[in-house]
Amino acid sequence: MATTRGASVSSSVDQQRGLVEELFAELARNGRDDPGITRAPYGAGETFAHDLMSACAAGLGLQIHTDAAANTYMTLPGRDRTLPPVITGSHLDSVAHGGNFDGAAGVVAGLAAIAAITSMGLTPARDITVMAVRAEESVWFGVSYLGSRGALGTLPDGALDVTRVDTGRSVADHIAGCGGDPGALRRGERHLDPARIHAFVEVHIEQASSLVEAGVPVGLCIAIPGNFRYPDARILGRYDHVGTPRRFRRDAMMAGAEIAMTLDRLWQDNESAGRAMAVTFGRFHTDTDVHGMTTVPGEFRFSLDVRACAPEVLADVEARFHAAVADIERRRRVTFDLGRRAEAAIGEVSAAILKGLEAAAAALGVATMPLGSPASHDAAAFAKAGVPMAMLFVRNENGSHNPAEAMDIDDFLHAVAILTLWLVTETCDDAIAG
Amino acid sequence: MATTRGASVSSSVDQQRGLVEELFAELARNGRDDPGITRAPYGAGETFAHDLMSACAAGLGLQIHTDAAANTYMTLPGRDRTLPPVITGSHLDSVAHGGNFDGAAGVVAGLAAIAAITSMGLTPARDITVMAVRAEESVWFGVSYLGSRGALGTLPDGALDVTRVDTGRSVADHIAGCGGDPGALRRGERHLDPARIHAFVEVHIEQASSLVEAGVPVGLCIAIPGNFRYPDARILGRYDHVGTPRRFRRDAMMAGAEIAMTLDRLWQDNESAGRAMAVTFGRFHTDTDVHGMTTVPGEFRFSLDVRACAPEVLADVEARFHAAVADIERRRRVTFDLGRRAEAAIGEVSAAILKGLEAAAAALGVATMPLGSPASHDAAAFAKAGVPMAMLFVRNENGSHNPAEAMDIDDFLHAVAILTLWLVTETCDDAIAG
Repeated sequence: MATTRGASVSSSVDQQRGLVEELFAELARNGRDDPGITRAPYGAGETFAHDLMSACAAGLGLQIHTDAAANTYMTLPGRDRTLPPVITGSHLDSVAHGGNFDGAAGVVAGLAAIAAITSMGLTPARDITVMAVRAEESVWFGVSYLGSRGALGTLPDGALDVTRVDTGRSVADHIAGCGGDPGALRRGERHLDPARIHAFVEVHIEQASSLVEAGVPVGLCIAIPGNFRYPDARILGRYDHVGTPRRFRRDAMMAGAEIAMTLDRLWQDNESAGRAMAVTFGRFHTDTDVHGMTTVPGEFRFSLDVRACAPEVLADVEARFHAAVADIERRRRVTFDLGRRAEAAIGEVSAAILKGLEAAAAALGVATMPLGSPASHDAAAFAKAGVPMAMLFVRNENGSHNPAEAMDIDDFLHAVAILTLWLVTETCDDAIAG
Repeated sequence: MATTRGASVSSSVDQQRGLVEELFAELARNGRDDPGITRAPYGAGETFAHDLMSACAAGLGLQIHTDAAANTYMTLPGRDRTLPPVITGSHLDSVAHGGNFDGAAGVVAGLAAIAAITSMGLTPARDITVMAVRAEESVWFGVSYLGSRGALGTLPDGALDVTRVDTGRSVADHIAGCGGDPGALRRGERHLDPARIHAFVEVHIEQASSLVEAGVPVGLCIAIPGNFRYPDARILGRYDHVGTPRRFRRDAMMAGAEIAMTLDRLWQDNESAGRAMAVTFGRFHTDTDVHGMTTVPGEFRFSLDVRACAPEVLADVEARFHAAVADIERRRRVTFDLGRRAEAAIGEVSAAILKGLEAAAAALGVATMPLGSPASHDAAAFAKAGVPMAMLFVRNENGSHNPAEAMDIDDFLHAVAILTLWLVTETCDDAIAG
C-alpha cells in the first residue's frame, strides 16, 4: 500500500519542481538585500512573502484566512471539517542579510505537498493547513515565536510592548500595521486551540552541516533545544588611557572576553561529557562611537544565547554563568547589567509522528538520520502548547542565517515527498477507504 | 642659591594661576564635544589651540614660528642664540571625547614657566622654546608622534600617505591644510637637528592613578614605554546560525576573546614577575552592521596595543602573541589578518635632567616620586633621536583619554614651579652670573 503511494508521490515530485523553484526565485528577488536576503518580521518583505504564498494557495484552490497575529492559514478542506487539522508550515521572516530558505522552505514544502495530494485526486479525512507564520526570528525584537505564540495564545507577558531593537517600534504597532489585531491578542484570544490540532509538522533547512557531513539529504528531528538568552547585556567599567597600569583598570572589554571564554570552556566540558549545548555571543562589542586604539574600553555590550536539549544542562550553565559574572565583577571591578532575560522551552518531538515520517522515508527510499535540532523553531511553541510535533530537516551546505545558505532542490523535494506521503498516510486512508 | 630662587618662583606661581586657568578654560570652551573634549590632529580644534597659545606667547613677547609639520615654536631668546635651545612642550591634539589636559597641559606649563622667568627679569643663556606639537595621538591615523617626528625628520616611511581611520584623508593633505609643507617633509627636511637641542622636557598629566594612590602631586618620569601595535586587525571565520554545533563553527568572536585572554594572562604573568607592561584592545567588536543575537559572528575586528619599558619584554610578548594566533587559527578554523603593524621605541630618560628636576622639587618642597610612564609621549621621539629628555607627571584623578580627567590646578602649578626652577638653574646661571 505504502509502496504504491510512494510511486505516485515520487512522480508528482517532478511536477512540483517548477512550482517550488518559481516560489523560491520570486522570494529571493523580492527579499534581496545584499549581501543576502532580508525579510523583517511584520515588514514589507515578509508581507510580500505571505501574499505570494496566498496567491499560490489560491491557485491550488485552498481556503485562506489570517489571524490576529497576521499569520496566514491555507487550508485543504478535509471530509470532516470538525476533526482537528494537521498543520504544516514555518515562518516567512528572516534575519538581516540571511538566506532565502530559512523559514520559507517550510511553507513552500507545505504547499508543494498539498499540490501533490490534490494532483493525486485525494481528499483528506481532516483539514490539512499550511501555516505561514509571522515573526519567528528573535533577533529583531529579542522575542522568539511571536507569530506562532500569538496564534496559540501563549505570548509571554509584555511581548506586545517589546520594541524592535533598531527602530524602537512596538510589536503591537507592527502587528496592527500588517492587518492583525493586537487588541485581541491582549485580551488573550487565541486562533488555535492546541487541543484541537492533530499534529504540527515543520520542514526546515538544517542550520548546521551534520547532514552534509553524513551525506544524508533529510534529517528527522529528535528534539528542539530550549534556551536562555540575554539579548542586550552591558558591562560597565571605566574608560582609561591605554597606558593605565593593570591594578587601576576597570576594563569592560577584558571582562567581556573573560565571560566568553568561561562559557566556551563550560561548553567544551559539557560536550566532552556528551551533553549537547551551544553558546553564542552574536553581538560582542566595544562602543563603536567612542572606542579607540589608545583608550581602555569603559563599556562593553553583548548578546548571549545558550541552548541545550536537556533542562538540567541549561540550569547548570546559567547558574555557572551568574557565578562567573559575580567573580569577574569583583576581580575586574566592573559591573554587569545583564538586562532583559528571555527563554524558550525545550520542544519534545512526538514519537508517533517521528515513526510515521521514518516509515514514509523508508517507503520512498530516501536516506534519513535522526538529528537533534541545532536551532529553535515555531514547532517548539506548538510542542510546548501540547500539540504533537515533528520536524524534517533538509541538508544545507553552509549553515543558515547567512547569505551562503545552500539547499539543493533535490534534497528539498525528498523532504517534500516524505511530508506528502506522511500526510497521505495520516489523513487520507479514510478518504480512499471510503 | 636654589632656595632664593625657589622662593621667588613660588611667589610667581600665584600670579600664574590666572593665566593658566584662562588658557585651560578657553581650550575647554572651544574643544567641547560632549562627552568631553575633541581636538582632532590637523583639525580646526587643534589649530584653534595653536592660535590660542601663539596669542598668549605673543603677549609674553616670545618669538613665534612654525615648521613644515605645522608645529608651533614660541621662543624666549637667550643671550647666545647659537647655543642649542632647551625645548619644553607637548601636543595640543586629543583623542575623541577625551579630556582637556592630556597634551595641552604641557604647552600651558611651558608658557607659564616662561612667564615666571620673564617676570623675574631673567634672561636665559640659551633659547628656551615652548613647542606646541601637532598630532601626537595615534588613534586618528594609527601613527603616533606625527608632529614631533616630522620636526625631527624621523617620520616612518609612508607616514605622510597614511589616511585618517574614519575619513580616509591623508596625513599630507591634513598637514598642507594647516599651512605645513608635506613636500619638505617628503624631501627629508627637518626643522630640528637633534644634535642641536640641549634638552627636551615635557610636562603631562599622569594617565593612571599612581600619584593619586601615593598622595603625591608630581611624578618624575624614569622611562617611557615602547610599544607594538596592530591598529586594525581582523579575524575571519564564518557567519553561522546560532544553533550550529561546535565542531562546525568558525566563530571569529570566540577567537577574539581567546587571543585577548591569552595576552591578559601573559600580562598577569609578567606583572607577577615584576616586568611592567600593558595590554589594550581599545577596539574589539563584531560588525555592528550585520551582527545579531542569533548569528555566530563570522568576522571580528580589534586594535591591539602592547607596551613595556623593556625591549625584551616587548619581543617576548609579540612572539607569544604570534604563536597564540597560529594556534587559535588552527583550532578554531579562523584566519587572523593582523593588518598594519606599528611600533614606538622605548624612551630613555636623561639621568642628568632627572637629577636636576629632583633637586628643583626638593628646593621647592614639592613631594615627587619616580614613575615609569604608563603612556607614550612626544618626549620618546626626542629621546629616540638622541635628545636628552625628561618628563614631569601631574597627579590626575581619573586617568586620561576620557572626559573625567581631573587635574588639580595646584598640582599643575607645582609641576610648573619645578619646571621653572629647573629652567632657571639650567639656563640662567650664566645670565645671573654675567
